[in-house]
Parts: sequence; C-alpha cells; structure tokens
Amino acid sequence: MVSITIEDIKAAKNRIHKFVNKTPILFSNKLSEWFGHDIFFKAECFQKIGAFKSRGACNTLAWLIENNERPELVVSNSSGNHAQAVAYATSQFGVPATIYMPESVSRVKAQATKSYGAKTIFCKNRAIVDKETELASQEEGTYWIPPFNHPQVIAGQGTAAFESLNELHDIDAIFAPCGGGGLLSGSLIATRALSPKSVIIGAEPKEANDAAISLRKNSIHTLSATPDTIADGARTLSVGDITFEYLKQLDDFYEIEEDDIIYWTQWLSHLLKVRVEPTSAIPMSAVKKWLSKQKTKKRVLVIISGGNVDKATMNKIWSKDYLSEIPSLISQTK
Amino acid sequence: MVSITIEDIKAAKNRIHKFVNKTPILFSNKLSEWFGHDIFFKAECFQKIGAFKSRGACNTLAWLIENNERPELVVSNSSGNHAQAVAYATSQFGVPATIYMPESVSRVKAQATKSYGAKTIFCKNRAIVDKETELASQEEGTYWIPPFNHPQVIAGQGTAAFESLNELHDIDAIFAPCGGGGLLSGSLIATRALSPKSVIIGAEPKEANDAAISLRKNSIHTLSATPDTIADGARTLSVGDITFEYLKQLDDFYEIEEDDIIYWTQWLSHLLKVRVEPTSAIPMSAVKKWLSKQKTKKRVLVIISGGNVDKATMNKIWSKDYLSEIPSLISQTK
Repeated sequence: MVSITIEDIKAAKNRIHKFVNKTPILFSNKLSEWFGHDIFFKAECFQKIGAFKSRGACNTLAWLIENNERPELVVSNSSGNHAQAVAYATSQFGVPATIYMPESVSRVKAQATKSYGAKTIFCKNRAIVDKETELASQEEGTYWIPPFNHPQVIAGQGTAAFESLNELHDIDAIFAPCGGGGLLSGSLIATRALSPKSVIIGAEPKEANDAAISLRKNSIHTLSATPDTIADGARTLSVGDITFEYLKQLDDFYEIEEDDIIYWTQWLSHLLKVRVEPTSAIPMSAVKKWLSKQKTKKRVLVIISGGNVDKATMNKIWSKDYLSEIPSLISQTK
Repeated sequence: MVSITIEDIKAAKNRIHKFVNKTPILFSNKLSEWFGHDIFFKAECFQKIGAFKSRGACNTLAWLIENNERPELVVSNSSGNHAQAVAYATSQFGVPATIYMPESVSRVKAQATKSYGAKTIFCKNRAIVDKETELASQEEGTYWIPPFNHPQVIAGQGTAAFESLNELHDIDAIFAPCGGGGLLSGSLIATRALSPKSVIIGAEPKEANDAAISLRKNSIHTLSATPDTIADGARTLSVGDITFEYLKQLDDFYEIEEDDIIYWTQWLSHLLKVRVEPTSAIPMSAVKKWLSKQKTKKRVLVIISGGNVDKATMNKIWSKDYLSEIPSLISQTK
C-alpha cells in the first residue's frame, strides 16, 4: 500500500504556497444559530481556478521538477475542474500541456482551460478521451497528471484541511465530498496527524454511490455509466486503488439525495454569499444528520470544494425554491 | 443645503465598527488582464444582512442614542435590503422595530427581516405601506429611519468608500450604483476628501432612470410607476432632496441596459465567486465604457452593493448564457 504522510502534505504546502491561495474560512452566524453548533467552511471556491484541484496539480508538477523530472509535456483528461487545474499549474511552471476533453464540454469550461495556454483536443466521447490521453502519455518526456489516484495529487489536496486545522482549533468533525477520493484522502491524512480526536466523514451523491458500494463490498466498484447527478465533481465512475485505502479509514460515509444537494447549494450560496458548485453542497446533508445525533455542542469544518457552475447547472439549481424552507436540525428532510 | 462632511463619515465609522463588517476588497486577475486595467471590488455582499444598507441604518440609530434620543420604536418601509438593515440595527441596540412591507414581498425577504426580531406588517400595496409608516412615525417616541434621504444614513453608507480608500491608494475612478442615491452621496463625500484626484461615477438602469432625468432637468423627477428593472435595489421612484445635491457633483453618470446588467451579474459572480445581486452589476457597463476612453492604465474601484437574490431573480439572471461571451474593451456591446 502506498503510504502518504503528514510530511508529504507539509512538503506540498511549502511547494505550492506561491502558486495557490490560502483560502478564507467562512462562518454563518445564522446557520450556526439555527443548528446550535458552530459550522466553519473552508472556501475553496476562492482557490485558483475556483476549486481545490489546483493544489494537487501544482504539487505534482512542482514535485516532478524538484526531483529533476521536469516533463516536456503534461497531458490530462477532464472536462471539469481538474482540466483547468492542470492548465493553470503548467502555465505557472512554463510546461506545455494538452488536455483531452469530450466534445460535449461546455464552452465556458473549454475557454477557461484554453485561457491558461493549454492545448485542448476534443474527442467524440469520454472513452476516446481516456484512450487518447493514455496513448499520449506513453510518449517520451510526457507526464500524465491524473485527477486523484496519485500520492502527490492527494498530498496537494490535503493542504486544504492542513491549512484549516492550523487555523481552527478543537474541531470535532470534518466533512468533505467524494468524487475520486483525492480530497477526502488528503483531508484524512491531515486530520489524523493534526487533530486526532476529530472524526472525518465523507459524502457522495446517492446517484453516484460507487464509493459507498465499494466500502460495503470492501472492493472497488465501478459504475457502468456516467451517473446522473447534478454534482459534476462527483461523477467519477470509481475511486482509485490508492484513495480507496484511505476512504476505508473514514469515520463515516453518507449517500445524499439530489434534492438535498440542490437544497444546500441554494442555502450555502444564500448564507455565505459565495458561488458554490453542487459538489460543494453534498456534505451538508451529512453534517445535518451527524449533528442531529450529537448531545453536546460541536465545532464542524466543511470543505467547500469549488465554485464553478455553468448556465445549465444554474438553471437546474434554481428550478425550485428551497430558500423558504429554513434549515433546522428538527425537520426530517434536507 | 444639508452639509455632510468627511468628519461625519469618520464619526459614523467609529460608531458602527462593532456592528458591521470591514468587508474585503476583491480582485479578478482575469478581468484586469482582459481589460488591461486594475479593477478592485469592495464586496458589500459580505456585509451584515448581505448589503451596504446595514452601515447607514446602524449609524443613524447609534447617532440617535449618542445624542440621547434613543427611540422607543423604530419604523421603516421597505421590501428589500433596507428593511433587513433596520431590523438588524435595532436588534443590535435592543430597540423594537416595526417594518411595513407590501404583501407581494418574497417569503425569504420577509423571513430574514423577522429573523432579527422585527415586527412585520403586510399592506396591500406600496402606497399603503408608505402611508402607514408615515402615520406610525408621528407617534411620540417613534423614529422613522428612511432608506437614503438622511444625513446619518448617507454618512453611514460613505464608510464603504472610506474603508476602501484607506486600504487602496492611487485609485483613478470609483463607481457605484444609484437607487435613491445614498451610497453614491456618501461615496462622493469620502472620495472628494480622501482621494481628490479620483473621479466618481454613478450608474442606474435605463429602465429606472429617474436620477439621469433629474440631472438633465436639474430638478428631481419622479417616476409614475415602479420601474421594470431586474435591479431591485434601483427601483426607487425618485432620489431625495439631500442626495440630489450630491448626485449633481458626480463626474459622470451612465444609464445601463437590462441585458448589460444581467451580463455583468453573471460575469461578476463567475469571476469573483461571490453572490452578487443585479444592482451590484449596474456600474460594470459604465466601467467598461469609461475605460474604453482612457489612454493610460487605470486603477478602478467598484462598490458591489449587495448579494441578496431570490429564486425568481436567479431564474431571470440565468435565462440566457452570457458566460460564453468573454468581457473585452474592444467589443461594442456589454
């Protein structure tokens, strides 16, 4: 088993601090009052490229360069935040990048990736995207930065929890969403080292519950088709062999209904006045369920993964009005 | 003519600093790169109640108490941010408040006002709201905090520009939206005192151009009906006699098309990752037009007035997709 330690996260923090933001921690007086517990939010929507992904991509590239393995070309396959993260990281280190994307990717996301100077290649579907990336990565001097299943990507993502736990003390529980498991793995390593009394809890959409199934079966389960969840950051078909070993060590794991994800996307943006993507809102329903079981006042940290939302997703988020249903620990829904 | 000075704004800042936030100044690398100028944003969406209005309401109430004129009851008439601001301010000072609102007010706004402990009274229409408020204000011990036409409200709103100009140096131009003119009046007083070389420019929706007409006619023009603009903070029927004297001193004033307001609401929320209400986006089209005429690189400050957006407004904002049209000084639209 690959072992990633707090020393790897500290090294990542030192490597990337010039290239990424130390994001703020937000607090909603109202939500904390309504719940009777203190809830803090690490706002990765204010991270470079609008999501935590730039941490892992910058760390991996900086680590390669530190080890005299500067690639001639970086390739990656993504239509989402990881594509932008790799494009951003390579632009900072002056390394050329080629990103393979499905033709269906939104114009705004493709533009954002291009705006960092990366070359974008559009393929008919995701299967071809993945195949082309793998082929390209076999060329001499080419390095494929994967979205989650890589020790340096995980160490980079762990710097978000690392920063938070250096700033906030006596946190009882940390929550983060699960896509491929990179953010949760890094957060788990940071939490066990810096705040061993805290529990760390993951959450994913019920519609994309490959990690939950994998944890129940104790072996990696792969979904047969792209899941139909509004949380585009959690549409991964399976976790990785490295991240799975860390996900097994989580204190709890929740599967969240789509309505609950949308409810909390509306409420987090309303209460915190930030742009949150649906993936960021996944853990809130778990926070609520976990807090409902607590007998004493708790201090909770939620990692808001990102704030990139396209027009079609905005329309889905705001097709219903949940802002008239105030969050409460007593009601059974949401 | 009522004279409000920088000393009034300094006194306001000292009075209210325990009750309101010193909001952050945001910057978008991308927008500044695309425009070739530096654009800073004072993010009043992170202000108490989600808008600059809490500054003026807190200052007026604190000033009354300082002058041994603590009211037994505060009344106000609003369906928007000013209602919440008065409710918030009175909750901080332990003064009861009654807010008159039209029945058509959105549930989320009424709830927000109630959540600060204010009594809410719903009237059939806006005319009855205004009449009831005036009647109530004639009672002994009752004080009516108006939304803009009051020296202490103006001095309070001026603390946003005051804070910004103490933090940022060499600002060439300051932009703010115009509703009743309170924010612009306060910003003008702060700017003339702290940064006399800066120009200060206002903007309002073309659909609600009472201030622009008033400035052209050199007398206050009152709209005959509530204007049909998405920018709910700029739906005032007329400016006040105090604010009009300050609006006349602005260096320029722009009337903005609805499409441009929506375009910039989308782009500001996308670039800054904050929740902006349409009123906040009004000045951006003016910024663009003004910058297009400049021959050297400029440093511009835009006051983002607030971040309170209900579901119906979110639907209007996101009915078109403007994120595929990247902002540029060269294109003629937006």
